[in-house]
Amino acid sequence: MLIKDWKEFLIPYEQAVEELKVKFKSIRKQFRSKNEYSPIEFVTGRVKEVSSILEKSKKLDIPLNRIYDEMEDIAGIRIMCQFVEDIYKVVQIIHQRNGKDLNIIYEKDYVKNKKESGYRSYHIIIKYPVQTAEGEKEILAEIQIRTLGMNFWATIEHSLNYKYKQSIPENIKERLKKAGELAFLLDQEMSQIKEEIVEAQTLFEIKSNI
Amino acid sequence: MLIKDWKEFLIPYEQAVEELKVKFKSIRKQFRSKNEYSPIEFVTGRVKEVSSILEKSKKLDIPLNRIYDEMEDIAGIRIMCQFVEDIYKVVQIIHQRNGKDLNIIYEKDYVKNKKESGYRSYHIIIKYPVQTAEGEKEILAEIQIRTLGMNFWATIEHSLNYKYKQSIPENIKERLKKAGELAFLLDQEMSQIKEEIVEAQTLFEIKSNI
Amino acid sequence: MLIKDWKEFLIPYEQAVEELKVKFKSIRKQFRSKNEYSPIEFVTGRVKEVSSILEKSKKLDIPLNRIYDEMEDIAGIRIMCQFVEDIYKVVQIIHQRNGKDLNIIYEKDYVKNKKESGYRSYHIIIKYPVQTAEGEKEILAEIQIRTLGMNFWATIEHSLNYKYKQSIPENIKERLKKAGELAFLLDQEMSQIKEEIVEAQTLFEIKSNI
Amino acid sequence: MLIKDWKEFLIPYEQAVEELKVKFKSIRKQFRSKNEYSPIEFVTGRVKEVSSILEKSKKLDIPLNRIYDEMEDIAGIRIMCQFVEDIYKVVQIIHQRNGKDLNIIYEKDYVKNKKESGYRSYHIIIKYPVQTAEGEKEILAEIQIRTLGMNFWATIEHSLNYKYKQSIPENIKERLKKAGELAFLLDQEMSQIKEEIVEAQTLFEIKSNI
Repeated sequence: MLIKDWKEFLIPYEQAVEELKVKFKSIRKQFRSKNEYSPIEFVTGRVKEVSSILEKSKKLDIPLNRIYDEMEDIAGIRIMCQFVEDIYKVVQIIHQRNGKDLNIIYEKDYVKNKKESGYRSYHIIIKYPVQTAEGEKEILAEIQIRTLGMNFWATIEHSLNYKYKQSIPENIKERLKKAGELAFLLDQEMSQIKEEIVEAQTLFEIKSNI
Repeated sequence: MLIKDWKEFLIPYEQAVEELKVKFKSIRKQFRSKNEYSPIEFVTGRVKEVSSILEKSKKLDIPLNRIYDEMEDIAGIRIMCQFVEDIYKVVQIIHQRNGKDLNIIYEKDYVKNKKESGYRSYHIIIKYPVQTAEGEKEILAEIQIRTLGMNFWATIEHSLNYKYKQSIPENIKERLKKAGELAFLLDQEMSQIKEEIVEAQTLFEIKSNI
Repeated sequence: MLIKDWKEFLIPYEQAVEELKVKFKSIRKQFRSKNEYSPIEFVTGRVKEVSSILEKSKKLDIPLNRIYDEMEDIAGIRIMCQFVEDIYKVVQIIHQRNGKDLNIIYEKDYVKNKKESGYRSYHIIIKYPVQTAEGEKEILAEIQIRTLGMNFWATIEHSLNYKYKQSIPENIKERLKKAGELAFLLDQEMSQIKEEIVEAQTLFEIKSNI
Repeated sequence: MLIKDWKEFLIPYEQAVEELKVKFKSIRKQFRSKNEYSPIEFVTGRVKEVSSILEKSKKLDIPLNRIYDEMEDIAGIRIMCQFVEDIYKVVQIIHQRNGKDLNIIYEKDYVKNKKESGYRSYHIIIKYPVQTAEGEKEILAEIQIRTLGMNFWATIEHSLNYKYKQSIPENIKERLKKAGELAFLLDQEMSQIKEEIVEAQTLFEIKSNI
């Protein structure tokens, strides 16, 4: 494909990412405007770069004429949460929209079942309809839902993977794993505090009503 | 309604405006990425301020519990075009999306039938579905499509109306009308040039194919 | 120059444009927050594209190693006003900052002395200091100040110039000139109304104080 | 102070935050455009809310007519880094700009000397000149420089402090401290990997040159 064709090919993906970012950020605003706790801390999104699409198509053996139907993360949305429990609330919110403005294709829970590398995140692959000059297009998009801790770790793993072209040296891999375990302990510690906050708030409300 | 309730009431409108802005800006990007002329020059949007909603509800005698169903411009999108002809191309694009991601309620062509004041613009009132925590909501939105010249005039008329609280003094009204006529002549002059451009481009393409 | 070098060369220009946009938008906010009329309606900015820099360097015979010192509009800021009189207020505000956060190199008043083509705008060429890893750099930038009407006309002239590569056919040039005159009459009409608004407001304030 | 006066009072602060955000983001862009590692991961900024200013002025016993001269964090900039070492590189970059576009008032290294609560960050208090209608104003601003891990912890501590109005219950405080220690271990682990990356890269370059 020529650069010009790639530019045109990626337009509905950019559109999907922009629309989905607006939609998930709006969920946060809705909670906040009601003075309720939002399970969403912040939202980012990106369209995969052409060089990365080409690399992945080679690695996964997807011919270029199949990437529209088969490559799932050209459009990517990332939702960050404060607590592990919030991830599942966000998943539930997305489930409720299934069949409305998006269609869930499949899900992978790398939070409960972390990857060998130490990677943790909840992935939902969706189809999202965008309107174009040639009519409606159903765009595949990957939604990653994670805690700030998981994201912190994944950001660093990603840059190391980029530097070492997927084959991180064994000793660094070990340290990365240890860091992943620390991030996991951190999330657990935070979850403990979350429960106590909820308890404290419930006690306070009961007290207020006497 | 309390400030808190207004804030909550307006959230789906903000969501609709954000989503529609992203969608119409994307139409422009699509044309550009194909090296085609875009009938859309730029897009703006706004949610009506609470004070203006209250004023309008009084003026039009809409009780507050009816504004969701009856006030059509709480969510507002403005699409600017270079030429008068482009307005009708944009209208056609919106017609093609009717029943897909938006539903057209009705239209008013103040371009062909300008208002007494001199105001010219094409208005489309739509219903646009947004997903909220309480399920889907159908939001009324007004899309205004106009040339840069129409917008230039309307911007100034709006600020005068604001300053004079809808009753602009007669002599200023007269000058404003004259200014509107000049803006109209300007648009006509531009349309003349547009035709010549199209002609010139057509001749050039025929020549290229010989 | 390689693409990589251009990218690096243009970074201080992007920085200058971003900083200047923030600064001029802030002037508008200051007036508004005091409930005063702002002479600035809106502000845009852009860094010239590499292809346009190359074209201009050829046309003006500026060797590439001299463009940093001699090309004045690589960084461009555009300030839009409602009335012709506002242009001179903005000019005055910029004069007051001379020697503080920017240095004025020279000015051209194409408002009072319009170009042969019909082009009207006030241009100020400044040097603006930005901090980089290699120390302070003084960036040349062009500030264009114009009414909405002047901008409307200039936008269309620019696209025609682009299409016809600077040699617009005579008949279209004539129509463009006529359009420019209409835009000029429109500005004059508006200035008349401005005076009346000021008069009306003064009368109103005197009345209020009796 | 009336709401209107607060709005006006805060305008130069908003201006300072906008300008400083643009400036620090630009440092990142400069490193990236040269394909060098950027010690800055991302930059955020905010102006303190009026309610928080009032609370702090009461707590620190600063009369309202002294907050311009004495309250140091009404304008706040936060710079996030991947590694602890990067913090000191950013500090060095800011030192180099001292006396140019900003003036350093004082610094506090809560990275080497963490607070009792477990809080870690590097703070630099600066004076930053902004141009206003009334002439130049020197705005106090606080720059916080921290790793993603420090930020993760501080974000959660901040929300707990907000919920418990500065008096977090003892048991939650303990868990928070433990979480802070885990975040600290995580940063240490990461620094270890950083050294190895640098080593690996140095080895690679030496090899390439043979």
